[in-house]
Amino acid sequence: MQGTEPAGKKKCDLLLLNGTVLPPGGAPSRIERGAVAVCGDRIEAVGKGAEIVSRYESEQVIDASGCVVLPGLINSHTHAAMTLFRGIADDLPLMDWLQGHIFPAESRLTETWVYWGAMLACAEMIMSGTTTFCDMYLFEHKTAEAARDAGMRALVGEVLYDFPSPAYGPVENGLRHTEDLVARWRGDPLVRVAVEPHALYTCSPDLLVKCSELARRLGVPLVVHLSENQAEVDEIVGKYGRRPVRHLADLGLLGPDLVADHCVVLDEADMELLARNSVKVVHNPESNMKLASGIAPVPRLLDMGVTVSLGTDGCASNNNLDMFGEMDTCAKLHKAAHLDPTLLSADTALRMATENGADALGWGGALGRIAPGALADLIVVDFAKPHLTPVYNPVSHLVYAAGAADVRTSIIGGRVVMEDRKLLTLDLEEIFAHVREFAENHKG
Amino acid sequence: MQGTEPAGKKKCDLLLLNGTVLPPGGAPSRIERGAVAVCGDRIEAVGKGAEIVSRYESEQVIDASGCVVLPGLINSHTHAAMTLFRGIADDLPLMDWLQGHIFPAESRLTETWVYWGAMLACAEMIMSGTTTFCDMYLFEHKTAEAARDAGMRALVGEVLYDFPSPAYGPVENGLRHTEDLVARWRGDPLVRVAVEPHALYTCSPDLLVKCSELARRLGVPLVVHLSENQAEVDEIVGKYGRRPVRHLADLGLLGPDLVADHCVVLDEADMELLARNSVKVVHNPESNMKLASGIAPVPRLLDMGVTVSLGTDGCASNNNLDMFGEMDTCAKLHKAAHLDPTLLSADTALRMATENGADALGWGGALGRIAPGALADLIVVDFAKPHLTPVYNPVSHLVYAAGAADVRTSIIGGRVVMEDRKLLTLDLEEIFAHVREFAENHKG
Repeated sequence: MQGTEPAGKKKCDLLLLNGTVLPPGGAPSRIERGAVAVCGDRIEAVGKGAEIVSRYESEQVIDASGCVVLPGLINSHTHAAMTLFRGIADDLPLMDWLQGHIFPAESRLTETWVYWGAMLACAEMIMSGTTTFCDMYLFEHKTAEAARDAGMRALVGEVLYDFPSPAYGPVENGLRHTEDLVARWRGDPLVRVAVEPHALYTCSPDLLVKCSELARRLGVPLVVHLSENQAEVDEIVGKYGRRPVRHLADLGLLGPDLVADHCVVLDEADMELLARNSVKVVHNPESNMKLASGIAPVPRLLDMGVTVSLGTDGCASNNNLDMFGEMDTCAKLHKAAHLDPTLLSADTALRMATENGADALGWGGALGRIAPGALADLIVVDFAKPHLTPVYNPVSHLVYAAGAADVRTSIIGGRVVMEDRKLLTLDLEEIFAHVREFAENHKG
Repeated sequence: MQGTEPAGKKKCDLLLLNGTVLPPGGAPSRIERGAVAVCGDRIEAVGKGAEIVSRYESEQVIDASGCVVLPGLINSHTHAAMTLFRGIADDLPLMDWLQGHIFPAESRLTETWVYWGAMLACAEMIMSGTTTFCDMYLFEHKTAEAARDAGMRALVGEVLYDFPSPAYGPVENGLRHTEDLVARWRGDPLVRVAVEPHALYTCSPDLLVKCSELARRLGVPLVVHLSENQAEVDEIVGKYGRRPVRHLADLGLLGPDLVADHCVVLDEADMELLARNSVKVVHNPESNMKLASGIAPVPRLLDMGVTVSLGTDGCASNNNLDMFGEMDTCAKLHKAAHLDPTLLSADTALRMATENGADALGWGGALGRIAPGALADLIVVDFAKPHLTPVYNPVSHLVYAAGAADVRTSIIGGRVVMEDRKLLTLDLEEIFAHVREFAENHKG
């Protein structure tokens, strides 16, 4: 009897081999000498290296020996182009900082500068392991273009408020501007658009309600700064006789598509409203610390079942876009605040920066985890470093010991955007030249 | 009339050129296109590049174009060999962590393992810009040897307590062991030895007093863990009827040569005692956060004139030796704790990690600043990175944006120990092999 011909291996577009692979489930689920097969922009298979190699072949192979392969990090809240103002002013009272430095600097922005600031941000994010970001800023169509040009995944939205914007003019144009932006990027493989009212103290109830209606009609997320500090809460209570979360609840804005940035100053009723309405909360620990906003009640929110993800905020208040630093700070800050070393484990911090980010920004199960069918946004972290040796638990190292520069290779939607620390989609010298020109003209 | 022959340039051993040089005084004192001339192990001159080049020549030149040149960072409190336990257990209640994981792991230590753990620590510290460290651990003669072999500056001390030590046997041998260690390293260009009683809850009043007498007789610093958390304060109050700082005061231990690690739980009277006696306090923000010890009252101590320096603590409670991360966390944590964004500026955080460390550990004005006559411990940080662009204020970037891997070149006592990220004194693969062998034998 004749033996059947062995079935040929399936061709895929990219194979990552020999790494420690981290599927969902934290440290216990890791696969030593694991492999990931990528077809198009999706993960086709993940498993033991020997098994994957027996089933798949590819012309493009990345050897991840000595490395950990994990989902690309998701920066759930930033203002990318504020890289232009990195370190322009620090350690000042909030109003001096905003009115004396940030607002004057921002008044000189043009869409060209926003593009180059966002390009710099994309370079920094890719080099530090972030593959997706959620952005809110002026001239956001240029941030969308920068993300596309960098090959980054992004949810962007033009910032909307009651006063005229340099991007779209009078307030009544804002919603149409956003609707055009949504239409322009509909179906893009990387860039999506949200409706993004700035905050409750800069947006009238009418504008907030219209934003919410637009987001629901278009089926896109609604993003807003919420309860960032006590001053905001006091102002909203003074104006409307109710706290910010209650104000949004009464206006009908709370829901699973609302992404609420910061949520530092919450009482128990606020947290119950957020939980009951499945609002997504974005925690920005370093920015909240640097601006002295306070410490968000993240352990309690997580206990109540709220999806809390992680963001860096903009570079004027952090001052980098490093999600490794953010995970580390997040895991430590709440332990100190509550004098409880068991709070906010490394596994939780990593989940906030991956799965929870994907869920918050509307990608759901299709992003932020290494699993068949998920988008192939992957990073390869080089553990052959003194500060990552020895290894008992790779998740512990990713959160408590790794640095942004340990990311060796980054893949977004199956495309290698950085290999061995070399950016493949961006020309750093060109970006530096533009941004330095901006800074030279805006000093002093 | 004949012109005089121009005087020949003075030969020196090393010239750093073309960098932004940071002498004491924070950002305003920076020298653009500055240079540093090094003769032997000392800084000979610092100034504008053109001026230095007109006066000095050297066969060894480091081009610091695009870089910032600053004093090597001083890690004022660590347990170097605990790199061996990096990530072995996290996020646990303190007593589970100590008694279930750290103590059992430490019980297997030998002097050989301490050597390799300390060598790994030296590699990590050099690569992250630390040039001096203060250490407390078992088998500390091996840590001294590791520092010497790595070319690092260190203040080391065998940990002393009431129970037998694997290093020196019964408690009565401890002081002699320390005295021998001091004698062995007396006059060494890099390594000095301190007397290091572990803590007030592990050392009898008698041992503490004898340690203090020995330190004063030998003219070396006295290093102790002090008031690290509320449990310690409660235990000491229960045992002796007074808080830890008062206990040390009554025993006569407070003085300018006392280096007190942690000092998290202090009341106003404690702080006054520390200030009045010129005790040096070492702040370890990340360890204090991760172990949920609390937040030390550093802004108040600084206001009272206390010399507060910065340390990482050991790798089991941080989990790295990255002083850049520590500066960043330090500058942000106190802002959040006090809801005041003006507290603990970037300049202050950098000073804590340089000048204050030198002053605390007994090197005084001879270390931790770039000035003629000071020891030539210098680091070169590469600012040609996305996350360090643009530059308005280099000190802001060093504290709030830079990462450990941005350190390009490190110099200790005039000797280049790392150049362009390549370690010149250590064989990383050899160190990795030893440490991984240790970890393999100590898993699970």
